Amino acid sequence: MKTARVAYDGLIHLAHPAQAGSLRLADGRQVAETEVTWLPPIEPRTTFALGLNYADHAKELAFKAPEEPLVFLKGPGTFIGHRARTVRPDGVKYMHYECELAVVIGKTARGVRARDAYEYVRGYTVANDYAIRDYLENYYRPNLRVKNRDTCTPLGPWLTDRDDIADPMNLTLRTTVNGKLTQEGSTRDMIFSIPWLIEYFSGFMTLDAGDMILTGTPQGLADTRPGDEIVTEIEGVGRLVNTIVAEHDYYGAR
Amino acid sequence: MKTARVAYDGLIHLAHPAQAGSLRLADGRQVAETEVTWLPPIEPRTTFALGLNYADHAKELAFKAPEEPLVFLKGPGTFIGHRARTVRPDGVKYMHYECELAVVIGKTARGVRARDAYEYVRGYTVANDYAIRDYLENYYRPNLRVKNRDTCTPLGPWLTDRDDIADPMNLTLRTTVNGKLTQEGSTRDMIFSIPWLIEYFSGFMTLDAGDMILTGTPQGLADTRPGDEIVTEIEGVGRLVNTIVAEHDYYGAR
Repeated sequence: MKTARVAYDGLIHLAHPAQAGSLRLADGRQVAETEVTWLPPIEPRTTFALGLNYADHAKELAFKAPEEPLVFLKGPGTFIGHRARTVRPDGVKYMHYECELAVVIGKTARGVRARDAYEYVRGYTVANDYAIRDYLENYYRPNLRVKNRDTCTPLGPWLTDRDDIADPMNLTLRTTVNGKLTQEGSTRDMIFSIPWLIEYFSGFMTLDAGDMILTGTPQGLADTRPGDEIVTEIEGVGRLVNTIVAEHDYYGAR
Repeated sequence: MKTARVAYDGLIHLAHPAQAGSLRLADGRQVAETEVTWLPPIEPRTTFALGLNYADHAKELAFKAPEEPLVFLKGPGTFIGHRARTVRPDGVKYMHYECELAVVIGKTARGVRARDAYEYVRGYTVANDYAIRDYLENYYRPNLRVKNRDTCTPLGPWLTDRDDIADPMNLTLRTTVNGKLTQEGSTRDMIFSIPWLIEYFSGFMTLDAGDMILTGTPQGLADTRPGDEIVTEIEGVGRLVNTIVAEHDYYGAR
């Protein structure tokens, strides 16, 4: 099943896909998907993000592929839902999208073996983990100015249940900018697989329900400009739509 | 005022210091401070931690002092309260304490100037930001295995209100191990000051009430072993007691 969180008619609802272009709210009502405000499909707790987890992308940035995971945490303030707007800071030179499979943990995990790892997964969603490349100083440091800005991590539209995805390690990822295909890859090209990552993290800390792992992005990055519509799509998981807005247009004059 | 969060008699209470060795619960009851379970004084939201924010400590680790903040985020699972136990992982070679002034944000801050920054501070507490040095690979990478383990960030005992601290940039920090002084410094030696940091963070992202900045630690680190009692104390803010326990004793045999 696919489950969204949407604001509509004064409340936050869980909702499921209905006939084309509409949603079935948990209370039974059917509404057009353009009538709701889409929220991130989960309220993120600890969010891990992988740097350079696809060898082709590491090469694209002229970095060597890591021998152990390059991981950073993301704060809750950076997430927005489907069809929302992401701010491009005024004055930056390069801001790229990153289509990523997000793995949502379903129950407490500590000391889990890779072979059992999927038991701890609740489901999957699509993340677009924008980066402000101006501040990407080096291999080790995807710092907060690059990766933790407000609005810079669209998430959704749905949480897709684990059992709906036959093989999460064999899914096509695609990004289009204004309808033109710019990024395409497959989750089978991850350097560190989903089961491996769950064993790794749960080996030194406890994972809990609501924790999320953004598993990295393949090659095919490009700068994005105000007005661009960026669609990140993962086979069977979802199609996440986002629009870039200039900082001064979003916040108005200070 | 100083305010703790404690579990006692089946509930979580706010509590204030009373006569020596006791606490006044918000409901008026007075209890011995050894009768309660101390919790972190706030429920952390986004927690920022500074690496190498005291020049003497950077030198101690043989790193150059940073020219801009080295910042990483900490997940919520790492925090514990006063008088709790911190796990030393079996098989690691070096685990050091770090006495740090923690600044708790009190209201939404975006685009704040340094001169106004203290208006956005709710108060202060003491953090002990343990590090597993075995995994400290380089200057840029205080990674999750170093800094984000369960139980490895004691916090407390209290949240001390902002206005109770005349000058947070001139406080003595001290750590004792089994009663012996091992670390001593002053917040005046921070490379990036509290107001500077609030301007910096709020310049590219929104800070919210409950966010917290761990401002780094001065020189004087030492390895800690199971059974050690580590007391980190900051003048006027609090005296945080913590004990090290071996992983196999804490979790039992797997």
